[in-house]
Amino acid sequence: MIIESSLDEVKKREKALLIIRDIVENNGRESLYDLTGLSGGFIASPSELSLLETYVGPAIFEDALQEVGIEHMGGEKILPLNRTSSGILATILALVGKGTNVVHYLEQLPAHPSIPRSCKLVGANYFETDVFEEFTIPDNTSLVVITGSTMDLKVIDEDEFRKVIEMAHEKNIPVMVDDASGARLRTVVFNQARACDLGADIAITSTDKLMPGPRGGLMAGREDLIDLIKVKVNQFGLEAQPPVVLAMLNGIKNFSGENLIKSFSRKDEFFDILDKRFNNFQKTPNGVLISPEGLSREIDVDHNLSDNDLAFVLSFILLEDYGIITIPAVGMPGASATIRFDLSTNDAFNMDLNDLGKKIESSFDKLLSVIGDEDKCREIIF
Amino acid sequence: MIIESSLDEVKKREKALLIIRDIVENNGRESLYDLTGLSGGFIASPSELSLLETYVGPAIFEDALQEVGIEHMGGEKILPLNRTSSGILATILALVGKGTNVVHYLEQLPAHPSIPRSCKLVGANYFETDVFEEFTIPDNTSLVVITGSTMDLKVIDEDEFRKVIEMAHEKNIPVMVDDASGARLRTVVFNQARACDLGADIAITSTDKLMPGPRGGLMAGREDLIDLIKVKVNQFGLEAQPPVVLAMLNGIKNFSGENLIKSFSRKDEFFDILDKRFNNFQKTPNGVLISPEGLSREIDVDHNLSDNDLAFVLSFILLEDYGIITIPAVGMPGASATIRFDLSTNDAFNMDLNDLGKKIESSFDKLLSVIGDEDKCREIIF
Repeated sequence: MIIESSLDEVKKREKALLIIRDIVENNGRESLYDLTGLSGGFIASPSELSLLETYVGPAIFEDALQEVGIEHMGGEKILPLNRTSSGILATILALVGKGTNVVHYLEQLPAHPSIPRSCKLVGANYFETDVFEEFTIPDNTSLVVITGSTMDLKVIDEDEFRKVIEMAHEKNIPVMVDDASGARLRTVVFNQARACDLGADIAITSTDKLMPGPRGGLMAGREDLIDLIKVKVNQFGLEAQPPVVLAMLNGIKNFSGENLIKSFSRKDEFFDILDKRFNNFQKTPNGVLISPEGLSREIDVDHNLSDNDLAFVLSFILLEDYGIITIPAVGMPGASATIRFDLSTNDAFNMDLNDLGKKIESSFDKLLSVIGDEDKCREIIF
Repeated sequence: MIIESSLDEVKKREKALLIIRDIVENNGRESLYDLTGLSGGFIASPSELSLLETYVGPAIFEDALQEVGIEHMGGEKILPLNRTSSGILATILALVGKGTNVVHYLEQLPAHPSIPRSCKLVGANYFETDVFEEFTIPDNTSLVVITGSTMDLKVIDEDEFRKVIEMAHEKNIPVMVDDASGARLRTVVFNQARACDLGADIAITSTDKLMPGPRGGLMAGREDLIDLIKVKVNQFGLEAQPPVVLAMLNGIKNFSGENLIKSFSRKDEFFDILDKRFNNFQKTPNGVLISPEGLSREIDVDHNLSDNDLAFVLSFILLEDYGIITIPAVGMPGASATIRFDLSTNDAFNMDLNDLGKKIESSFDKLLSVIGDEDKCREIIF
């Protein structure tokens, strides 16, 4: 076994960072293809960056974000947050009292942990269900939560979405929608309405999910509620900082629904290309993956490597030979060794899938050629 | 009266932003002198910015920040936070139990509100004092807090600092130091030791205070406690995001103790220059200010302007004629109309104080020449 400990993982990651730095320095950023889907974006022009240094840059970007954000999300007012989780915390701090109830409807459990966790912090009772017929709103409920699309990109039915909002509003209870990826996935791919247009009082999206923006949360909704939430946001330091606000603004401006739709159809095309040679790739909503076990089943030559080691070596070959970044090479200790190719990333939009498929095949062939030589594999990783 | 409502203030601010944008576009950033002391810094090279777009940039900057941050703050491990307030919240979430006591010693009340507020959130009892002789640590105390230097830059006595830490450690209670500006003010100007070197278990500083960094919090301290706090930070979205981490790194690297010491002595020099002509300027720890009432007392010609209007017009003349940014022109609705000249800002470091004094005199002369013509004043502001 090559990667045996967290320390090995740290060393492996350091090596990957060095390779990437070399590629950026010698061949430029355009020779790097980040398909992790975790990179986030930071788009900024030199004139914007020089404004960022002054008192006014932030003010200009926040003002501009009001306009661009409302176009993207609907609602009356926008509030940029450090994370979607911080926005959920602030909403619950502002609207949910101790001993009251919070009920959450989502397409498929589990819920994002930030919701029950924030409820616990304020001493509220939290209930969740993914069975629409079982969804009820008990007395003494302070907030109804809807998840637009889950962490695994399962999308809520729009009729159920509307009905939950109706049920809440009949009792005068505000509705917060966690629309982390849903604000784009639901509207662009599934042709649903924006959460605020469906009647949500507060909606939050993640600006790094399915768009070229930074990690952060963008809240939209009723001005009176946003103003209440903003007080908590400023008190506890939950707001997005100016450089992030700038990147949010440019991320939304550079968001292309067409590219997103394309990535959803392209994953089928890409799967078919890979399926000609391999048997163990699987589709994700916006790309493909192969697990360490799946990779192992592709190999019929003798070797002493663990399944995870196979994935690490392949991930390093992809990086070193073709500048393709996948999580096993750069992941933090404990990250999964599954190799994902996310086609909704900025770098993926313009890639030729046949060419990418050939690079994966050729990297796999190289894996086969070194697999019997553990020292050689060790050298590739460290 | 010219500025009568929040709407007027918004319009005034919009005009100021336009003037600043024009100056940046026509004459470049170097023609602008931001003396608000509120700008924060965002220093980044083109190669760093291109790294920011990739999965690895953040990892590289966080690693580099460990080294540079420990040099600045001491301690075993660094944790970059969205705000100092978020770091205080996370520490209290991680270390303070419901019903336990938190005691806080600072040089002068009032304390920063984030500390009692976070205690209230977790249901802890909060006690504070600025009288050292009255400081005691009751039973069932989970955290002792020390403020290194207050919001008004009052600095704690180093012996009292040590004694409070000793008292806490005798009872095995961890000590958190809110060293927002103190991490630089105490060490560089007052020759005190770093909080961690004095025995603090956790210390937090604000990277935009007295250094050219972004708004954000930098925590340092015992690795075991930082790891506990980091869990809360990640759960509730309190960490600094990659662009901010990059700017923190460069802010610390560009911090000059010499410049800070200079700003503290230069404020005396500057005060003397202004005092030749004016009677109502006052010293701040790192600059000078004149209040609207003080400004009014400088004027012996007839006019119908309010004290605040006088300050607004003068602030706009300073901006339009000399590119000098002060808060009355760019401030948010409700901000103070006091004109502060902060000499610890990046832009102030290389300014000739005699020249700056002349610009202020000449702007004041212009104020006198337009003061009788309310329409003219209105035109300057809107």
